[in-house]
Amino acid sequence: MSGRGDILVVGSIALDSVRTPYGAATDVLGGSAAYFSLSAIHFAPVRVVAVVGEDFPAEHRARFEARGVDLSGLETAAGRTFRWRGEYTAELGHAHTLETQLNVFSSFHPRLDPAHREAPYAFLANIDPDLQLEVLAQMKKPKLVLSDTMNYWIARKPDRVLEVLRRVDVALLNEEEARALAGETLLVRAADRLIELGAKAVIVKKGEHGAIYRDPEARYLTPAFPVEALRDPTGAGDSFAGGFLGWLARAGAGDGNALCQALACGTTMASLAIEDFSPRRLVETDPDEIADRVRLLHRMVHYDLQREFS
Amino acid sequence: MSGRGDILVVGSIALDSVRTPYGAATDVLGGSAAYFSLSAIHFAPVRVVAVVGEDFPAEHRARFEARGVDLSGLETAAGRTFRWRGEYTAELGHAHTLETQLNVFSSFHPRLDPAHREAPYAFLANIDPDLQLEVLAQMKKPKLVLSDTMNYWIARKPDRVLEVLRRVDVALLNEEEARALAGETLLVRAADRLIELGAKAVIVKKGEHGAIYRDPEARYLTPAFPVEALRDPTGAGDSFAGGFLGWLARAGAGDGNALCQALACGTTMASLAIEDFSPRRLVETDPDEIADRVRLLHRMVHYDLQREFS
Repeated sequence: MSGRGDILVVGSIALDSVRTPYGAATDVLGGSAAYFSLSAIHFAPVRVVAVVGEDFPAEHRARFEARGVDLSGLETAAGRTFRWRGEYTAELGHAHTLETQLNVFSSFHPRLDPAHREAPYAFLANIDPDLQLEVLAQMKKPKLVLSDTMNYWIARKPDRVLEVLRRVDVALLNEEEARALAGETLLVRAADRLIELGAKAVIVKKGEHGAIYRDPEARYLTPAFPVEALRDPTGAGDSFAGGFLGWLARAGAGDGNALCQALACGTTMASLAIEDFSPRRLVETDPDEIADRVRLLHRMVHYDLQREFS
Repeated sequence: MSGRGDILVVGSIALDSVRTPYGAATDVLGGSAAYFSLSAIHFAPVRVVAVVGEDFPAEHRARFEARGVDLSGLETAAGRTFRWRGEYTAELGHAHTLETQLNVFSSFHPRLDPAHREAPYAFLANIDPDLQLEVLAQMKKPKLVLSDTMNYWIARKPDRVLEVLRRVDVALLNEEEARALAGETLLVRAADRLIELGAKAVIVKKGEHGAIYRDPEARYLTPAFPVEALRDPTGAGDSFAGGFLGWLARAGAGDGNALCQALACGTTMASLAIEDFSPRRLVETDPDEIADRVRLLHRMVHYDLQREFS
């Protein structure tokens, strides 16, 4: 065993059909657990708990295995794999969902084996908050659990979403979700409100504006890595989560410096994911490319505070 | 003489009537040169070139003088002072202009005396780009000139706005203006495009998302100072400009470290301005309050790049 902590991810593996102003793709590998695991695996060992149908292509499975992602928790159920069809307009901020076929995902109940239960790090992707709480109940003293959510659950089960926020260590939300859940327009106030409501820490993902971290004591911020060749924003948030939690698992620390570095790793992995359809770039990238982007992000914000202010 | 370089600002002094979700104010001190000078004066000497009418209240003039702003270039013309009336809705992003009375401002042609012409630093606020070029033509080798603009001029005189961008050292734009002038939706590409079009450096102001600096070699970013008590966003951009150019004039340097520090001073002064109507908070603040905010901004982004990436 290296010093790196194992990461458990519970989420979806899907076949996505996506259209953007820069192209289109049909039935390509997608889903929160796919983007997350292929991002986090660059930093630490990852175990996936998810479900696919009997039609899930062997070549997709092979991609995870080639990268060393542990698929022993990937259940194959009778029926078809979860499918999502969506498109992005020129604004690129939001996906318009055209069709969702839950298929085998509709009856998914995550089953954790002993190795999963003992993972020190976990990511609860944007599944039903009741399922997220089921997973939490099965885990044995994890060091750090990160959650995600989506507007769908905030609108339908706000109390359960808040319960998840109170139980995990860090909750990820995008701008719209943070505003909706907090009932505040200004992001600064929305983040404050979520802390007042009992969240231990939140990260608000702001797309091209980067991401902010807030806990009762501190605020940190990362710019977004400046992507010129954006092709498909799908999976940006889960890839961010993979880089963020991946770094914390690798570093084994959760102090301010580690959190800032983790934010930079998150936005770096998101920047790679959106340069092509499906998690292709996450599979193809290497440590040098990742380090180059992380260094550039650091240069964008790093300066010595002048004597006058210190 | 201290080591601080004098700053010239050419812009408007106005009487503003503003309504926001948090209150309203009638005929209060406003205008780009007012916000800029009362912000920059905390860092370096400032000389104003502007025009007011015979109705301009002596108490407003006294506010500048109490702070040491040089008003020898403030012309009093026959007629009424420039008036602006606007309101902000709950989103707070954009002012809705209800009425603009140019009054004495309609025939304003900036006249620079020798002290103005020799100022090493200058801010050309969002006046007609032809007037900005007139001012530039009168100046003797300034060290650094900063410009601002607005959608009104981008729509009517895009070529002249671009000519200003090519002639000044740093051009300030907000998100919308950068997108409109560059014809690009993504901000990263919009900033790149402005550099391709000949701008030496641009700063894109993003409100609660902070500001980005871009020149052909470097990109820097500052988060916005997290304001809880926002009351009136009027003047945020000009107050930002005052802190930014003020710091560069005080530091006498324009390297990456100085630019980052200047961005932090800019967003600090903007955060003060928007906590009350008119530039009241800029007048009342002191070096300790400014330094506290600058330090907090530094803590939000500062971390040591981990060995793995360096």
